Amino acid sequence: MTERVLTGDRVTGKLHLGHFIGSLQNRVALQEKYETFVLLADVQALTTHFDKPDLIRTHLREITLDYLSVGIKPERSTIFIQSMIPEIAELTVLFSMFVTVNVLRHNPTVKTESKNSGLDDMYYGFLGYPVSQAADITFCKATIVPVGDDQLPHLELARKIVRRFNELYKPVLVEPKPIVGERLIGTDGNSKMSKSLGNSITLDSTSEEVAYKIKRAKTDPARVHKNDPGHPDICPIYAYHQAFRPDEYPEIREGCEKGTLGCSACKALITSTLEQLLEPMRERRSSYAAKPKIVDDILISGTQRAREIARETMAEVREAMSLNYFG
Amino acid sequence: MTERVLTGDRVTGKLHLGHFIGSLQNRVALQEKYETFVLLADVQALTTHFDKPDLIRTHLREITLDYLSVGIKPERSTIFIQSMIPEIAELTVLFSMFVTVNVLRHNPTVKTESKNSGLDDMYYGFLGYPVSQAADITFCKATIVPVGDDQLPHLELARKIVRRFNELYKPVLVEPKPIVGERLIGTDGNSKMSKSLGNSITLDSTSEEVAYKIKRAKTDPARVHKNDPGHPDICPIYAYHQAFRPDEYPEIREGCEKGTLGCSACKALITSTLEQLLEPMRERRSSYAAKPKIVDDILISGTQRAREIARETMAEVREAMSLNYFG
Ligand code: SF4
Ligand code: SF4
Repeated sequence: MTERVLTGDRVTGKLHLGHFIGSLQNRVALQEKYETFVLLADVQALTTHFDKPDLIRTHLREITLDYLSVGIKPERSTIFIQSMIPEIAELTVLFSMFVTVNVLRHNPTVKTESKNSGLDDMYYGFLGYPVSQAADITFCKATIVPVGDDQLPHLELARKIVRRFNELYKPVLVEPKPIVGERLIGTDGNSKMSKSLGNSITLDSTSEEVAYKIKRAKTDPARVHKNDPGHPDICPIYAYHQAFRPDEYPEIREGCEKGTLGCSACKALITSTLEQLLEPMRERRSSYAAKPKIVDDILISGTQRAREIARETMAEVREAMSLNYFG
Repeated sequence: MTERVLTGDRVTGKLHLGHFIGSLQNRVALQEKYETFVLLADVQALTTHFDKPDLIRTHLREITLDYLSVGIKPERSTIFIQSMIPEIAELTVLFSMFVTVNVLRHNPTVKTESKNSGLDDMYYGFLGYPVSQAADITFCKATIVPVGDDQLPHLELARKIVRRFNELYKPVLVEPKPIVGERLIGTDGNSKMSKSLGNSITLDSTSEEVAYKIKRAKTDPARVHKNDPGHPDICPIYAYHQAFRPDEYPEIREGCEKGTLGCSACKALITSTLEQLLEPMRERRSSYAAKPKIVDDILISGTQRAREIARETMAEVREAMSLNYFG
């Protein structure tokens, strides 16, 4: 069987370096080998942002520019909009018939996210997030799903739903395998870079913004004087060296631990590395941003392509469930 | 504003006299005045019958014959299939974003039904039943919904969902009003005629079946001897007189209470009344049953008509929610 990749993002905010390390760089590599579908999850954005539709609308195009800027190629990756694929909603509704509330309530991601967003009373759609994710994955029969480690329980549930469906009706759906990406620490030392924690560096940051955020980033507090020996493992700057300068970070460790490398010099090095990464992205971004019609066409044709696949899968699902009354 | 009626049935079993009194006779009258939509709820049937798709498939055509036999006219009423209107699934998913789990859990119908069907662990789709019903009602902007008294809390929730949507986005949805039908007692004296309680007389019953079920029906147990005075208010047969012989039931009460009317004679009267009701239905049924192609055409064209309306409403909903990215 040929592999097919499904990946994507909730349309709630700009993408940042954490997304790049966790998922985007994987996608750019995977698209060269496999048919790749990239989902703009605007419906799932509504699970937490139903009262901010304009924010979703704005970010839809911003995230598309993020994708194009990191090197996701429209000729290799199908970028598409969730709300324009009704078959995803149909599958969500059908799957919801045989998934119990308990399974969803005890899903650790739902638990955690419900705590994070401070809901004292969960919304029905939020509780069903993993069911809707299973619909995203199965409508295109994805075999590979690059996910963050926190998304693994969702993927496990998607696999269960596929098995259950195939068992109940006919084996028409495909069980996806995860590829787990790395997690990137925030500039404040929090274990996860995240927009809502205010510790992220977005992919569209200017040089000044990058320099400023790295300058303000936490380091090892033990290094009061330049020559104090440091503990790189607790320093986000060191984590960035590991993530973005894979050939050189052992030297950084040595310099930090021996007290021969000062934090300012260390930060200057990573700033320049990030500049090398982000500068070509900025160029691609501004070139696409200048041609909004082309960006729209990418979204429209990607969504059309996804819709064709969705129609085919949905026809098989209807047939499997005996819902094809006139066929 | 012109009124529009939405009504329908879960596709889980044949319709019976309880449906006739509770809803079908209302529909037949309403279709003469208002544009009427009649929903074959096969997706909602899955909430309890997801593992019996063939049962749903069979009943879809049986219930359509029930409709045609009672006098629902395809030229006045749009009979359509829920699973073929993807916009209903889309609205269900969108509404689920702003309805809390608590509201659904405490919905009395969900509570009761969950007890009846013996689920110790509720399915996610079952919990969301009222949300999906709100989608049924709103996709066609129904203003009038004939319901049984047990469905009133669902309708109240649908009204809330409409108000919330219109408040959050734009006032494009319409708040429906209920018309509450009468409840018919079962042949065993249970307060509700219901297929699952085995106390129903289906609309497609033969003369022999009707006679047999009436013969076996409970009466007032105090009437051991023919002349014992009876208590019609606890007797299902009396309830049938009230429901089906509205002009004559006071005489029945008198005869029963005075002990001048025997139960056999009383049952013979109602049997003959039911025959007068059911015989023309049997004729219409067998005439349609002989022409399955015509029945299919009724369903196909009804579903097409419903789909057109659904597309219009969905376009307005997308626009209201700012999900119309290329409009
Ligand atoms: S030298 Fe670099 S790795 Fe060490 S504490 Fe300073 S910034 Fe962090
Ligand atoms: S006479 Fe009729 S109403 Fe009275 S108990 Fe008998 S069957 Fe019931």
